Amino acid sequence: MRYITIVIGDELLIGQVTDTNSGWIARHLTPFGWEPAGVMTIPDDAGAITAAIDRAFAQVDVVLMTGGLGPTKDDITKSTLCAYFGGEMRLDEATRRNVDRIFERRGIAMNALTAGQAMVPSSCRVIVNDVGTAPIMWFERDGKVLVSMPGVPHETQTMMERAVIPQLVQRFHAREHIAFSNFIVVEVPESELAMRLDDFERTLPPELHLAYLPKQGVVRLRLTGVADDKLWLGNTMESHTTRLKELLGGDLVATRDIPLAQILGEKLVGRGLTLATAESCTGGNVAHEITLVAGSSAYFNGAVVSYANDVKTGVLGVNADDIARHGAVSQPVVEQMAAGACHVLRTDCAIATSGVAGPSGGTSDKPVGTVWIAVRCGNRTTSRCFHFVGDRSRVIEQATTRGLIMLIKLLGC
Amino acid sequence: MRYITIVIGDELLIGQVTDTNSGWIARHLTPFGWEPAGVMTIPDDAGAITAAIDRAFAQVDVVLMTGGLGPTKDDITKSTLCAYFGGEMRLDEATRRNVDRIFERRGIAMNALTAGQAMVPSSCRVIVNDVGTAPIMWFERDGKVLVSMPGVPHETQTMMERAVIPQLVQRFHAREHIAFSNFIVVEVPESELAMRLDDFERTLPPELHLAYLPKQGVVRLRLTGVADDKLWLGNTMESHTTRLKELLGGDLVATRDIPLAQILGEKLVGRGLTLATAESCTGGNVAHEITLVAGSSAYFNGAVVSYANDVKTGVLGVNADDIARHGAVSQPVVEQMAAGACHVLRTDCAIATSGVAGPSGGTSDKPVGTVWIAVRCGNRTTSRCFHFVGDRSRVIEQATTRGLIMLIKLLGC
Repeated sequence: MRYITIVIGDELLIGQVTDTNSGWIARHLTPFGWEPAGVMTIPDDAGAITAAIDRAFAQVDVVLMTGGLGPTKDDITKSTLCAYFGGEMRLDEATRRNVDRIFERRGIAMNALTAGQAMVPSSCRVIVNDVGTAPIMWFERDGKVLVSMPGVPHETQTMMERAVIPQLVQRFHAREHIAFSNFIVVEVPESELAMRLDDFERTLPPELHLAYLPKQGVVRLRLTGVADDKLWLGNTMESHTTRLKELLGGDLVATRDIPLAQILGEKLVGRGLTLATAESCTGGNVAHEITLVAGSSAYFNGAVVSYANDVKTGVLGVNADDIARHGAVSQPVVEQMAAGACHVLRTDCAIATSGVAGPSGGTSDKPVGTVWIAVRCGNRTTSRCFHFVGDRSRVIEQATTRGLIMLIKLLGC
Repeated sequence: MRYITIVIGDELLIGQVTDTNSGWIARHLTPFGWEPAGVMTIPDDAGAITAAIDRAFAQVDVVLMTGGLGPTKDDITKSTLCAYFGGEMRLDEATRRNVDRIFERRGIAMNALTAGQAMVPSSCRVIVNDVGTAPIMWFERDGKVLVSMPGVPHETQTMMERAVIPQLVQRFHAREHIAFSNFIVVEVPESELAMRLDDFERTLPPELHLAYLPKQGVVRLRLTGVADDKLWLGNTMESHTTRLKELLGGDLVATRDIPLAQILGEKLVGRGLTLATAESCTGGNVAHEITLVAGSSAYFNGAVVSYANDVKTGVLGVNADDIARHGAVSQPVVEQMAAGACHVLRTDCAIATSGVAGPSGGTSDKPVGTVWIAVRCGNRTTSRCFHFVGDRSRVIEQATTRGLIMLIKLLGC
């Protein structure tokens, strides 16, 4: 099934906000075999909305629309959709009760502006928004479907998962069943992986499809199956998932599509281990990624960002002679940083980084992008030198990813 | 001048990469009075590219195109542009020399794939890409202009600033002069600011325009002037900039459009002060923002991320009785964290955070989103309790921004 996403919002067009909904939608519809034919980002303007819907329906049968539904501006979007699909604006009781409920919980009274959120075109079927006040509106005409959703990513994404995706699948794949499995592989180049899986891919039944999403030392694989026969699909997916796990072996670090820091966190919790970081060039970004995971306080004690050499020696206990002899960006220093983090922050494991993020500070010996990373668990330490390409923020990002991968690998499967 | 941005790339459509070029372009063309009529994100497909150009030129006279120019896929984009604008593919000598130069620097030999990067349609004018191998192509027909640029943000943004924006301005505002001034204001609500500037805005000459970009306690103001008379424009912009500075007074923290962490960094350098952070709920993100600024090692010594209470007491020297009595999320604890960071990391200034980022850990007393922040400089300390709305990552982001703002304010103008 091909679809087009229409993103409405002046704030997106002028670059004040970056659209992440269209990408999220694509990542979550691809497993069902859905293919995005395009994304149109348009202003909060009736003429632009009508023209975009016309152009989209000329190409595809399904249009997903996000934005244009805030309390101060939903008039334009809703009245345009009402004019397009026919009918008149009416009060939707379920939405009004939902708005009341949300406002009561927030302890504020509904005003005329917010009361307007419960008005919807009579030509749509309403899906009540569990996590916000703007209703989701499902329009259908001549076999074509348009679903209008709010622009707030949290609301759109929650309601897509809870209601819109299941209903789209039900509507367009009534007789088909869909199944998918995720696999995260680290430190195997995509080309090497493709060779290893060549035979597996060539012998896949036509109902199954394997997709690759490579990024910075991580390859996310997604096996999707679409078939009429549910029992056959279940068995086939299971046997191919088992076979794929065997082929991936120790390079497979997760069978769900979750962040690396969460994979690491689950391994630590499973083994009852605690974690700290000692960061120079990554400047706290490894700790930031780790603490973005809800519940990380169960295993993450803390971090020492040792930008100054004084902090490396004074707080982490790195030998000053080693800094003088080998430089701050060196194997002995980064290994001592990891050991120091475990000691000072009283943890079993640590990730340590020291490098030249740039744009200045590079030498012919250690050019910009040179990063030493050490990971430690108990008495085992692994360290490695990387040469990253890109600007300061890209070097920091890559070093962060590699540090997480190295500790995941050290902890094993 | 209205324009449309066409973003080419399967990897963007399927959500593997998020487009940030279109927003960047909008933010950098708005000051010249340019208005984005829409953004179209399309696949690497000749039919889709041709259809998008047709639709865009039906609406506007200028199309900016990014992407579709990597060494493995630029054939489609270039041959489609060649078919659209006429002429034939030819070797561009300046681009070939540029590709040679870049490959020589990277120490690799040019292969057939990369040699193709120097082939361009004869109907375009080439702007050599100083920072990459893909050429920028300027097409013009019947008064309509299309500029094709690479998808790599760093390349597009650098070359937009160096060449494309100046040439667009020259082409479409040959007789006009353009000037703009930036102002960053913190901790003044947008509505209060609008009231304070009401008289200023109402008496602005029609050639001048003031735009607001509010976000999380920060309002970025941009004063733009467009006029034929260069001398008049210079004088008028100067007098209005002076008047605006007076009206903003102590709330004005910068007169350039730069990140908050850079504003803070420049204040610290100017006063010869050093900085540390002590972070609980922000988990290293304040340090990360600070160290994203090139040259931050000149004033940033480091950070202690004290997720565990043991680290708060053991490393930062927070009084354990105060944690027991007031809780870790409290004024005495966060103030002691700031003092501890200055002491342990030997700095003049510190930012400290302690809060409930969620989704769990909230109580009726201190619900999710409650964050105490303290900032310290010498013997002066300011602390404040915030109640942020949003999910875990939003709470962390807002606490980070507020911490930076509080120290900027403590340091004064």
